[in-house]
Amino acid sequence: GVIGIGGGGGTSVVAAGMRALPLGLPKLMVSTLASGDTAPYVDVSDIIMMPSVTDMAGLNRLSRTVLHNAAQAIAGMAAKPAPAAAGKPALGLTMFGVTTPCVTAIVERLRADYDCMVFHATGTGGRSMEKLADSGLLAGILDITTTEVCDLLFGGVLPATEDRFGAVARTKLPYVGSVGALDMVNFWAPATIPERYRGRLFYEHNPNVTLMRTTAEECRKIGEWIGGRLARCDGPVRFLIPERGVSALDIEGGAFFDPEADAALFDAIERTIKPARNRAVTRLPLHINDPQFAKAAAAAFLDIAKK
Amino acid sequence: GVIGIGGGGGTSVVAAGMRALPLGLPKLMVSTLASGDTAPYVDVSDIIMMPSVTDMAGLNRLSRTVLHNAAQAIAGMAAKPAPAAAGKPALGLTMFGVTTPCVTAIVERLRADYDCMVFHATGTGGRSMEKLADSGLLAGILDITTTEVCDLLFGGVLPATEDRFGAVARTKLPYVGSVGALDMVNFWAPATIPERYRGRLFYEHNPNVTLMRTTAEECRKIGEWIGGRLARCDGPVRFLIPERGVSALDIEGGAFFDPEADAALFDAIERTIKPARNRAVTRLPLHINDPQFAKAAAAAFLDIAKK
Repeated sequence: GVIGIGGGGGTSVVAAGMRALPLGLPKLMVSTLASGDTAPYVDVSDIIMMPSVTDMAGLNRLSRTVLHNAAQAIAGMAAKPAPAAAGKPALGLTMFGVTTPCVTAIVERLRADYDCMVFHATGTGGRSMEKLADSGLLAGILDITTTEVCDLLFGGVLPATEDRFGAVARTKLPYVGSVGALDMVNFWAPATIPERYRGRLFYEHNPNVTLMRTTAEECRKIGEWIGGRLARCDGPVRFLIPERGVSALDIEGGAFFDPEADAALFDAIERTIKPARNRAVTRLPLHINDPQFAKAAAAAFLDIAKK
Repeated sequence: GVIGIGGGGGTSVVAAGMRALPLGLPKLMVSTLASGDTAPYVDVSDIIMMPSVTDMAGLNRLSRTVLHNAAQAIAGMAAKPAPAAAGKPALGLTMFGVTTPCVTAIVERLRADYDCMVFHATGTGGRSMEKLADSGLLAGILDITTTEVCDLLFGGVLPATEDRFGAVARTKLPYVGSVGALDMVNFWAPATIPERYRGRLFYEHNPNVTLMRTTAEECRKIGEWIGGRLARCDGPVRFLIPERGVSALDIEGGAFFDPEADAALFDAIERTIKPARNRAVTRLPLHINDPQFAKAAAAAFLDIAKK
């Protein structure tokens, strides 16, 4: 276990160190900043934030009590580490509302043998999943919904970081990927959309969430970015392309149906991912939410997980 | 100790209960909302926030580890409560930059016998101090800087709550009060100041903090509010009035010097506080930051603390 104490500067420094440690290892930060926006310090980690209540300059009766409790807490956690997970191996999966039928069907197929952890592809979700992988807590990844890349490349509000797919490369975990929701960039209410996107195709998911259809040119860039990252992954990689649409909106008759944009996306991925002995791209004449697509994704995972 | 687990709704409910418990009693909240703005949940309490990392719906290998660590932490804290403070009795004091010389001089005089906890009068500071008093952790209060009342009544950014002075009434602790910084309402950058205050007297503390001089009419309302609250306090109360100015700006030649406004303030307090056997208002022909004023405040406290 790790314990830290800090005000503004100290919290920033210590939390940065703690974030580099594996999930599950007890980490307790006594801080003047624990009541407020802790996201810059905690991010997607499991850092426990404990309010110092008074300033940490010098001891007083309250800070003595707070520090006593902190010492007891970290000692309690360090005294008996969590037992190694005895149950099923864990999988990470990425989902969005528009890929829910696909991911739900995959989980149905795999849950008998795997502990399935589904992450919403909100930027934070993808990062949490990769952090889990880096911490050695995952046995594989079904990254059906890679949509966070759109927001990273085109200024959406739920972006991946530049390190997206980094944990896949580092851990060489069995990986099944797909193009879920790559038809959309996320914005908040219409007023928040950058001026440069005036005249584009939008879909109002709700009054506070507006989706923008990615163009063929953007799709080419998205595909190249994803393919380029996956080309650096030396573990088993299976990438599945649903030729009839990548989200619930990108379906014949749907608001974002655009075979030309999708074709640009698929071509770019195929061109850049560099298929190899351990890395394959498969096109299927199905929509992403077709039950047969979920079946194929689960089968692809079981195929590489066996090895 | 108390432990809670929750997502959005659960965190809100459980934290509300935890906030009602005394400071120092271990309270640990495992929450999906621990990485983000925790202020609505933690507020001025010592609630420890622990990220659940994955969603709390159902168990998975990570949530098992997180919950194991949480159980160990609360068990560790509950196993050995903090020893009762053996040192000097603790005092709470309120300070602002413009009353620092006064409060510092008071601490100098009292620190040999008391553990002095100084709180910045930022709204949070006053609430933290009163929370400490309610938790039984204070032996007395020197509330030199009651400025948070201005922001409460006139829309400033560092307001007290309606419960200001509530802990004084509930605990009947020895209390020395004064009028520190009642010459100002706090705003952020000039652009944030409400339109209704156009044409008022402002002082730019820094580019992000703008102070507005309170008028005689406002001072009357402030004085009545404070006096009315203190009239409900049955413990020993001594209220000291520095007739030559209430802050570093409210001094002859200073930007906020306004004897008429101060007079309205002092009169309103005297009229509403209802002096009684145990409650007295004393005027001193001194500025608040005059060393003689600090000396008088410390002496007034020692006088009532003895009883």
